[in-house]
Amino acid sequence: MKQAPFLLVAVGTIAALVFLIAPAPGRADGEPAPIFVTEIPQGYRDWTWISSAHEAGNLKSIGAVLGNDVAVKAYREGKLPFPDGTIIAALHYHYVPSAENNKVFGQAQSFVPGAPTNVQFMVKDSTKYAATGGWGFGHFADGKAGAAAFMKTCFPCHEKAQASDLVFTHYAP
Amino acid sequence: MKQAPFLLVAVGTIAALVFLIAPAPGRADGEPAPIFVTEIPQGYRDWTWISSAHEAGNLKSIGAVLGNDVAVKAYREGKLPFPDGTIIAALHYHYVPSAENNKVFGQAQSFVPGAPTNVQFMVKDSTKYAATGGWGFGHFADGKAGAAAFMKTCFPCHEKAQASDLVFTHYAP
Repeated sequence: MKQAPFLLVAVGTIAALVFLIAPAPGRADGEPAPIFVTEIPQGYRDWTWISSAHEAGNLKSIGAVLGNDVAVKAYREGKLPFPDGTIIAALHYHYVPSAENNKVFGQAQSFVPGAPTNVQFMVKDSTKYAATGGWGFGHFADGKAGAAAFMKTCFPCHEKAQASDLVFTHYAP
Repeated sequence: MKQAPFLLVAVGTIAALVFLIAPAPGRADGEPAPIFVTEIPQGYRDWTWISSAHEAGNLKSIGAVLGNDVAVKAYREGKLPFPDGTIIAALHYHYVPSAENNKVFGQAQSFVPGAPTNVQFMVKDSTKYAATGGWGFGHFADGKAGAAAFMKTCFPCHEKAQASDLVFTHYAP
């Protein structure tokens, strides 16, 4: 019993040290932890349109990719890798037929965004996100950030797009 | 021969008068002529994204609808009819599969914009375009304005969207 107070202090000190020297929260093995984008970048809905896309298969999604000024400048100048400060936003919606448009066209041909599903971000910060190619990945559904297990799937997939600095979307002229 | 000079002046004067009183170029029957947008509005590629769409059928198109500040403010406030000064741009591209994305996904599911096909505009000016619901319609392919016969097809179709002031596209949140 005599040693208990010292032990508590020691444990507390070690815990504090681990916290301070750990390269990122959530990991204690000394390896850099993946860091995800945990806050929705301000004002992204006003950013410049880069392109649209429809994903069939399981996603059944339609949406747009928007970029902040740094992103759009880099895209237009064909500058790779994207510079720090680049933020790219992908706005996804359910892919639905437009009954309204189809009535006018006289046939089922028009597909538009339905309810929003999620918004995803790629934030370039070559220091902060060094462990994931310089990109921080974000995913928000109903304003809530994606769980860590899900977020770990972003980088391995984007990593395949080496030729375009991990970014899939091309600029639509 | 004595009257010839007077006749020329008279014809010239009448021609000038017809030009001045004619409601629009190209028509001399006194009826208001349809007027189309003949110049591409400046800076439209930087405007705010309103929505995306895919048109199947004969169009096989994917694209985006962008709006100038007046348009976007009206959309966000749910303000109808759209005020004068509104300009809405529809950027259309060939609807093509992305071999690059599909390779990563491991299946054919990704559809993106290919080469541009045309850019269309709706310009709100309730005076200038009174004959077509207050909207001037524009269509440009390779920078060239659509022929008059083609342009006459815009209004009869858009007129069917009475509930949304002749505009088909809804704002994607």
